[in-house]
Amino acid sequence: MSELRKDPVTGRWVIISTERSKRLSDFQLESVAITPDDGCPFCEGHEQMTPRELLSRRRDGTHADGPGWDLRVVPNQFPVLRVEGTLDRRGEGLFDRMNGIGAHEVVIESPRHVDTLATMGESAVEQVLGAFRDRVQDLKRDRRFRYIVIFKNYGKGAGASLDHSYSQLIALPIVPREVRDEMDGARAHYAAKERCVFCDIIAQDSQDGRRLIAENADMVAMSPYAPRFPFETWILPKRHQALFEDTPRHEFASLARLLGDILRRMNKTLRHPPYNLLIHTAPLAEPAGDFYHWHVEIIPKLTKVAGFEWATGFYVNPTAPEEAAEVLRDSRG
Amino acid sequence: MSELRKDPVTGRWVIISTERSKRLSDFQLESVAITPDDGCPFCEGHEQMTPRELLSRRRDGTHADGPGWDLRVVPNQFPVLRVEGTLDRRGEGLFDRMNGIGAHEVVIESPRHVDTLATMGESAVEQVLGAFRDRVQDLKRDRRFRYIVIFKNYGKGAGASLDHSYSQLIALPIVPREVRDEMDGARAHYAAKERCVFCDIIAQDSQDGRRLIAENADMVAMSPYAPRFPFETWILPKRHQALFEDTPRHEFASLARLLGDILRRMNKTLRHPPYNLLIHTAPLAEPAGDFYHWHVEIIPKLTKVAGFEWATGFYVNPTAPEEAAEVLRDSRG
Repeated sequence: MSELRKDPVTGRWVIISTERSKRLSDFQLESVAITPDDGCPFCEGHEQMTPRELLSRRRDGTHADGPGWDLRVVPNQFPVLRVEGTLDRRGEGLFDRMNGIGAHEVVIESPRHVDTLATMGESAVEQVLGAFRDRVQDLKRDRRFRYIVIFKNYGKGAGASLDHSYSQLIALPIVPREVRDEMDGARAHYAAKERCVFCDIIAQDSQDGRRLIAENADMVAMSPYAPRFPFETWILPKRHQALFEDTPRHEFASLARLLGDILRRMNKTLRHPPYNLLIHTAPLAEPAGDFYHWHVEIIPKLTKVAGFEWATGFYVNPTAPEEAAEVLRDSRG
Repeated sequence: MSELRKDPVTGRWVIISTERSKRLSDFQLESVAITPDDGCPFCEGHEQMTPRELLSRRRDGTHADGPGWDLRVVPNQFPVLRVEGTLDRRGEGLFDRMNGIGAHEVVIESPRHVDTLATMGESAVEQVLGAFRDRVQDLKRDRRFRYIVIFKNYGKGAGASLDHSYSQLIALPIVPREVRDEMDGARAHYAAKERCVFCDIIAQDSQDGRRLIAENADMVAMSPYAPRFPFETWILPKRHQALFEDTPRHEFASLARLLGDILRRMNKTLRHPPYNLLIHTAPLAEPAGDFYHWHVEIIPKLTKVAGFEWATGFYVNPTAPEEAAEVLRDSRG
């Protein structure tokens, strides 16, 4: 029997279609394979192939844009938005536009071509999270920006253009709609109940247990109640916190540990799937401290159905989250 | 220079990224090829391979579920929702669910395996549109349903499971979010201006001309101002009308003519792309007569980027709509 479920934050309904229920073996799993590439612009020794670095973690005595680093952040060579210029907002009759002011940066997560977040080890992953935080702290001083999207496309099937492990930051002069919807939903819940909806979800699901995957002292990984995609997984801090960049260091260490664990479980059970990873955090200049709660969403790319879903906002998910959570819970990466 | 544009109906911002501007030759065009299939359940003579027909257009003297038809509508053999049962809405602490009551039907658009909406001719396409209308009129008598999604996935790249030309209807006990967003935006525009936002768009773009593709007496085809996808195309009735199913017959004839024309133009310029076609119409039991305006959206599947967009609701489109409209306007299918 199929079931309609409502996401308690955004109010979005999804169909969990058990009629079409997919066992793991039914997915056409597309494994990510990393191909060696002597011309990879992100490998150590190829620093001249990227724009100049904005930030790096380097060994003593090494120089910017030379070898000797563990992590580099550089501007995207093909940015969707550019930092230079004045934000110019204009109307055109019915229509509204602004010029493409923003920032688009690339976090090169390792000097080695074959590393991934699943294999890099806890302290290296923590360094990546720290680089996200430091770049957000720097970019948010620019008052033109309203939101910074932090995301990772892993594998060509999920939109990556290179095999070398990297993430991206895009600073925007607007708040994207998905964030706006989450903010609106979380604000309404708080107005009605004086509680954070994400804290409520953590409390109810910790008691229930069926959608829990793994946890440690500071972080919990779970399948959401109304996921749009099979094996969609959220990682949330247990302590209420609206802004990713305000997270204390020990919580980043806990996140790095749990993130690596979850990615290894996915690699094992779903055979190294391509995935998208997104950090959901509150907009830069809006008070959200009471009601928003930052979190990480990981979406392995397992289904091909796409067009209909993005066009209608109406998602059919062939795997119940309780089933996905059980598979990931029982697996050890 | 990139540009941010706001959709005047939903308020969604998109980036038109001309930095990454794609000429037609840059797209990895994936042409749809129809493979002959002796076991196709939708071909004439194979009526026993589908569930029993709900509606058909047949020649005199032929019998239901036998040969002699031009069009058949049958229940989907693998429905995402089922018609049997009572709608049962339930809460579970924080969470809301209902059982999967609904209807899922397939419109087999032609008895011939190789026909497509682009090749079928005007009266056959009009018959398809008429079947949509008749099925909606029938399904809307069921008070459990709030919305009927009418859509077509053409080609495997757009989610089609069979090569034989077909469309789908899904009757839902809820209103999908994309429809809700359009309704909210159109209602707010009407409240502020006492005018339909879609009528305003048609008026402004008819004057402007840069996003117009083609038109006839009753219908106009255009690139929307803030499209999420390259070559996204809308067809709207010029006369204000909230509900697709209330459209008079001569307007369906005009739509059939323009739809075939647009699909042939896309086939010519984009080399037979997979596409999704959606009919956006007002919900079944909500007064929307003044402010909503039904329309058709056609989205050729040209870009592979997917995960990031559906996950954030934040779209980067490499082709400006003025450029797409010019290409399609100058082409003759």
